[in-house]
Amino acid sequence: MFTLLSRVANLSLKERVKHLNHRLEKTADWLKEKDISFCMLTSTPNVFYLSGFYTEPHERLLAMFVFPEEEPFLVCPAMEISQARASGWEYEVVGFSDTDDPWELIKIALTKRNLNVSTIAIEKEHLNIERYEKLKSLYANTSFVSAEEKLHTLRMIKDEQEAAILREAAKLADYGVEVGVNALAKGKAELDILGEIEFELKRKGIRQMSFDTMVLTGLKTASPHGKPGLEKIADGHLVLFDLGVVLDGYCSDITRTVAFGRIDERQKEIYDTVLKAQKNAISTCKPGIAIGEIDIAARSIITQAGFGDYFTHRVGHGLGINVHEFPSLNSTNAMLLQTGMAFTIEPGIYLDGVGGVRIEDDLMITNSSVEVLTNYPKELQIIK
Amino acid sequence: MFTLLSRVANLSLKERVKHLNHRLEKTADWLKEKDISFCMLTSTPNVFYLSGFYTEPHERLLAMFVFPEEEPFLVCPAMEISQARASGWEYEVVGFSDTDDPWELIKIALTKRNLNVSTIAIEKEHLNIERYEKLKSLYANTSFVSAEEKLHTLRMIKDEQEAAILREAAKLADYGVEVGVNALAKGKAELDILGEIEFELKRKGIRQMSFDTMVLTGLKTASPHGKPGLEKIADGHLVLFDLGVVLDGYCSDITRTVAFGRIDERQKEIYDTVLKAQKNAISTCKPGIAIGEIDIAARSIITQAGFGDYFTHRVGHGLGINVHEFPSLNSTNAMLLQTGMAFTIEPGIYLDGVGGVRIEDDLMITNSSVEVLTNYPKELQIIK
Repeated sequence: MFTLLSRVANLSLKERVKHLNHRLEKTADWLKEKDISFCMLTSTPNVFYLSGFYTEPHERLLAMFVFPEEEPFLVCPAMEISQARASGWEYEVVGFSDTDDPWELIKIALTKRNLNVSTIAIEKEHLNIERYEKLKSLYANTSFVSAEEKLHTLRMIKDEQEAAILREAAKLADYGVEVGVNALAKGKAELDILGEIEFELKRKGIRQMSFDTMVLTGLKTASPHGKPGLEKIADGHLVLFDLGVVLDGYCSDITRTVAFGRIDERQKEIYDTVLKAQKNAISTCKPGIAIGEIDIAARSIITQAGFGDYFTHRVGHGLGINVHEFPSLNSTNAMLLQTGMAFTIEPGIYLDGVGGVRIEDDLMITNSSVEVLTNYPKELQIIK
Repeated sequence: MFTLLSRVANLSLKERVKHLNHRLEKTADWLKEKDISFCMLTSTPNVFYLSGFYTEPHERLLAMFVFPEEEPFLVCPAMEISQARASGWEYEVVGFSDTDDPWELIKIALTKRNLNVSTIAIEKEHLNIERYEKLKSLYANTSFVSAEEKLHTLRMIKDEQEAAILREAAKLADYGVEVGVNALAKGKAELDILGEIEFELKRKGIRQMSFDTMVLTGLKTASPHGKPGLEKIADGHLVLFDLGVVLDGYCSDITRTVAFGRIDERQKEIYDTVLKAQKNAISTCKPGIAIGEIDIAARSIITQAGFGDYFTHRVGHGLGINVHEFPSLNSTNAMLLQTGMAFTIEPGIYLDGVGGVRIEDDLMITNSSVEVLTNYPKELQIIK
């Protein structure tokens, strides 16, 4: 089905660095325009977006400092410097050991630069108070603004390289569902099926799922955030798969629900309603509509069918380096849909005592139309 | 090897609630003692510790408010309320939908209580600035203190129930390494082996690994935070496994390094040195020693052997609901080792162009001695 991994990342390191520098320039331009002295980014996704370096620092500090005029620098554990370099980071790296105070080293790196600090941009949705207080202590009388404003906007519009990765990641999500559906058998546990899916994806070179894979069977499908366990597949069950992979730093996210054996009319009714709602939501997608309309397109179908109270979440979310990112596809979002946006559409109905159905695709707005990235069949499948 | 999962969580819901209430009481007592008006906890581990409710809220808000005298309340997405209840949370739950502003609902819940707010405890290492500013806007002239000070201390000392879970989690980590070593064969990729390990653990009922499983072969072992890929096992390789499971909310974490085929004297030398260092560190463990001595016990052996510069991280970390938690086992930690502490000991040597060796066990201080929780053999194994 696939040739091999990283064919999408076939760009040479030099070409990748060009991409990264372009993003750094845009960030620096924004700092200049807004008269911000510098920005400190601390989340894995934003550091990756600007440096190519993807790392999970756990409790250790990871940070990137970007300036309007001066050279940026990266802060990471010393033992990860070589990985940062191999990812394409060409500028200064401040490495610290487990007994160093990274803030002392940051202070030195900042002092080397010609700065007149009045405003600092930080990730308000990520930076914690402890680090915020440390940063504040370096500069008296400084004001802090949100860096997310800019980074969300930059990351929201995917370039061709990102689009290519998202397409591949979506195909791997399709494959995950295919493995799961093929593995279904009476008496197997949710976790057995889940294990088979992830095993096959690892064999394709996937190191990380984009979130904890969900395989739910029977009445457990009625919980939108249920946890897989040792419950067994049985006749008359709905079986719900929700999964995605991380490929070259980008996420996919698919949900399919299938029937195992003889399901009843009520289960069929919710399936048909969700499918109709999902297709209707997709059909509204084109550049220039308000994002809220996508949610409304799905919700109106579900409400008309009498299940409005059982569609308990928004219709979808942006997709990229984070599995949930901007924009949020809820009914009140007035932002306009734009070329380059990637997102999910995933209405669901959850009926206690009956079961739940959710159908989710990944989509992208390309060339003034909508491209559906996930393509596993979504007409009701009855597995015998 | 194991009977089945959740045998350790065989406590009835009622007994679990008793445990949780005991922890809530201790937290409330601390608030009273320190004259803190309330504390707001926001991290999954701390909310789990006090409520029994384990959830990954992604970008949605999760919070728990605890008061010196008033009844606590939990804040979570509305679609997760039933799961919170099923986990044993008996008090108020403030649920919000994707179009609600949870802060409006929090304000109402706070207003219902008889409060005179002057000091608020928050998770300074977790709470982000955006939420901090929202909380601040509810109360003028309030000071903020760290809630971690207390929560770290409470969580650092494990009770009997937690100890039982950690023991089981460690056995499952042993099993993971066993599967990995048995799966080794020339020409297999790192990710193939990794897939087999996780597949077998899922069949044991494990839903989640405590971090991204590491299987590294050949020169890649020289990177302490290397990432598994499609590199293939070959003669003369060191192969390093670092993995752990999440069991009933608690983590394990084991590392073993084995030799595949004929390894050379240099590789054997670093193996022997790391093993000696690791055993020496374990032998120092007893209640009342300074934690820094454990690091020094390992480091001195490695330094004497001439590899001091290549042991680039601390000797270990606390272990519990987080895979890395208090205490930190670095050379400068003067805190005394106490009964109930659980932690890892994991010295390593990483030589570019030769390979790396790390050996890691999970340990707990019980009844005034050290109990080694992971028991997979650690004498050098040469796989042919």
